Amino acid sequence: MRTRPLKVALLGCGVVGSEVARIMTTHADDLAARIGAPIELAGVAVRRPSKVREGIPADLITTDATALVKRGDIDVVVEVIGGIEPARSLITTAFEHGASVVSANKALLAQDGAALHAEAQENGKDLYYEAAVAGAIPLIRPLRESLAGDKINRVMGIVNGTTNFILDKMDSTGAGYQEALDEATALGYAEADPTADVEGFDAAAKAAILAGIAFHTRVRLDDVYREGMSEVTSADFASAKEMGCTIKLLAICERAADGGSVTARVHPAMIPLSHPLASVRGAYNAVFVESDAAGQLMFYGPGAGGSPTASAVLGDLVAVCRNKLSGATGPGDSAYAQLPVSPMGDVVTRYHISLDVADKPGVLAQVATVFAEHGVSIDTVRQQGKDGEASLVVVTHRASDASLNGTVESLRNLDTVRGVASIMRVEGE
Amino acid sequence: MRTRPLKVALLGCGVVGSEVARIMTTHADDLAARIGAPIELAGVAVRRPSKVREGIPADLITTDATALVKRGDIDVVVEVIGGIEPARSLITTAFEHGASVVSANKALLAQDGAALHAEAQENGKDLYYEAAVAGAIPLIRPLRESLAGDKINRVMGIVNGTTNFILDKMDSTGAGYQEALDEATALGYAEADPTADVEGFDAAAKAAILAGIAFHTRVRLDDVYREGMSEVTSADFASAKEMGCTIKLLAICERAADGGSVTARVHPAMIPLSHPLASVRGAYNAVFVESDAAGQLMFYGPGAGGSPTASAVLGDLVAVCRNKLSGATGPGDSAYAQLPVSPMGDVVTRYHISLDVADKPGVLAQVATVFAEHGVSIDTVRQQGKDGEASLVVVTHRASDASLNGTVESLRNLDTVRGVASIMRVEGE
Repeated sequence: MRTRPLKVALLGCGVVGSEVARIMTTHADDLAARIGAPIELAGVAVRRPSKVREGIPADLITTDATALVKRGDIDVVVEVIGGIEPARSLITTAFEHGASVVSANKALLAQDGAALHAEAQENGKDLYYEAAVAGAIPLIRPLRESLAGDKINRVMGIVNGTTNFILDKMDSTGAGYQEALDEATALGYAEADPTADVEGFDAAAKAAILAGIAFHTRVRLDDVYREGMSEVTSADFASAKEMGCTIKLLAICERAADGGSVTARVHPAMIPLSHPLASVRGAYNAVFVESDAAGQLMFYGPGAGGSPTASAVLGDLVAVCRNKLSGATGPGDSAYAQLPVSPMGDVVTRYHISLDVADKPGVLAQVATVFAEHGVSIDTVRQQGKDGEASLVVVTHRASDASLNGTVESLRNLDTVRGVASIMRVEGE
Repeated sequence: MRTRPLKVALLGCGVVGSEVARIMTTHADDLAARIGAPIELAGVAVRRPSKVREGIPADLITTDATALVKRGDIDVVVEVIGGIEPARSLITTAFEHGASVVSANKALLAQDGAALHAEAQENGKDLYYEAAVAGAIPLIRPLRESLAGDKINRVMGIVNGTTNFILDKMDSTGAGYQEALDEATALGYAEADPTADVEGFDAAAKAAILAGIAFHTRVRLDDVYREGMSEVTSADFASAKEMGCTIKLLAICERAADGGSVTARVHPAMIPLSHPLASVRGAYNAVFVESDAAGQLMFYGPGAGGSPTASAVLGDLVAVCRNKLSGATGPGDSAYAQLPVSPMGDVVTRYHISLDVADKPGVLAQVATVFAEHGVSIDTVRQQGKDGEASLVVVTHRASDASLNGTVESLRNLDTVRGVASIMRVEGE
């Protein structure tokens, strides 16, 4: 084994960073044996140097992150600051000064992944980011490497633990959205401002990263259709139950049937209770992958938290250090396929639509005609009367999102349709 | 991209081999883009050259596998023959003549993995074998690489599809073992001689491989305790249901609580229906991993079949070809921890024991005394009378296998105990 240590600079020392530093110390011998050389924490860049950080020598702490990555003797920079700047500039500077980078930064990777990969490659360095998607669940490495000889057709996952906690709570207790959110906040699963989670921004960033890797295609954050889950109601769960389904916030990346394009989207959807994703409870994450040869795979585990995220960071750190010692780099960005990303209107799936209608003869015929005019085929209709009003629940066969939107617009124009109570996609069949 | 192709020799052209050859042809462009160079099927060694093999040029077919791996221009040998010899000698010869090896051979890896890894390392070559455990499920790469910065404490999996199909059938239909086995045979899930599957030999080989990787320790096939599932009865499933459990054939690799030793075992066990492994149906496989930092992870997918296994082989082929191009080798064998493998008697778990006893006062007290004398603490007892006879169902707290065996031996010597109807371990809590 090489005795001269590889030097690691840590940018950020919050929940994840402090856990990375702790494991680097407590598991030093194991990490050295697995890498083939010891690793040494050479510096830790923080914003608040006065905060006591147990187990980290005070002389390693600095507020000058740029000077740290410019030192020139750093082998690997671990970026766990999050956000776009200064993380982006620091990573670029790291590459230019001889370091490879391990990052847990999904927002940055989703927005600037292509440029960062190009910079890594120009400088002959590695950029690894297993922790950016679904915490500790090994996902990027399996998709990029284990399935490298296969053709992935669909990646469908629960990639946000906060929203899964809320939806699971609504499903199991009958709680409304606000009540479940409040509990998530009280337990620390949701942040004070939960927008990034509940409106699907976090999941959309992960969808962009996953779609890019799965389809060897550049998928930008703007390419991802996004719909949050803050409008899911107890009534939606009741409807889902009647169909033998539950509701999950899903990130779905699909190759079109003709193989010529891809789509990426995030929205709440009903899935059958028999689907492996339906039984993913609490704040857990899971990603279901369908490929030509391997068939159906699922990867399950904790999607967030200091320790799980640190586990993913350290797995990458070991790999990047090994690459460094052997003078090689790992599999980098792969966007050779350059498939176009289609808009949401082209997505084909099934829909569950609840309508409030007048309770009189001929309404069902009118409604059915509208669906037919838009080429949307109906699978089942359930009609329920109540005090002169009635509700119609329509479940469609597979149709494009554009056709469905056209249908709904026409339905709203019918005198006999008082309102469209809810529209939800049905996935996983 | 390099234009000179990398040359691949295929040893074996059965269900898996022919699928590997097919995908190499149909997905040639994708594979070339992912590797950075085209790959070329340079030769296919078979036993029966007269058999028609669609899509494989006749001039590539040979019966002389040794001459093929000795050619000297082969970059990667894909071994999908199975069994110990001639696979073992061919792999050794391949290393000596400049080729890296991708194998799907669990029996060989479990028996001779250490020696083969040593040969690969001496020759500066790769030995990859993702397909040897749980078919297409990415497992070896996640354990070896993604979790390289973590400490794995337990690997517990359903790693044999045939037995899971049989047990699932017994659970869902109430069928007996023989009836379920017959159906598995008729559907092609079980071989004419099902011994390797139902007696747990196949799962034991996988357990040895998984334990070795998870604990960075040499675990030989002989170190794995093995108990098949051919004696599981409908009555056992009824007992399991009463406990809110089902029965699975599990491969369990554990680090002892003090961290100083490991165990590996294969046996049928009750697991709670709420455990993620309980809902793994049909011939699917899944492996549940518990580690210090990442927490609980699960990997799920098809555990066998031509296409899934070919997917795993091709993922390895891409990785090995990439390594070849960059002049590096991937992470090889890692047995630095050298932990001792403890015998089955040291394993600590819970037990479900059914006893046929005389239906008279004082029997329960006698039985309870025997448990106490052996230091086995009882969790619950259920007593049921029938025609002067009674049955006692005892579920214990955690105890060592040695203590439990001692207890059962003493119970058999009690006059009031007519027989021990069944003993089954309870896992997953």
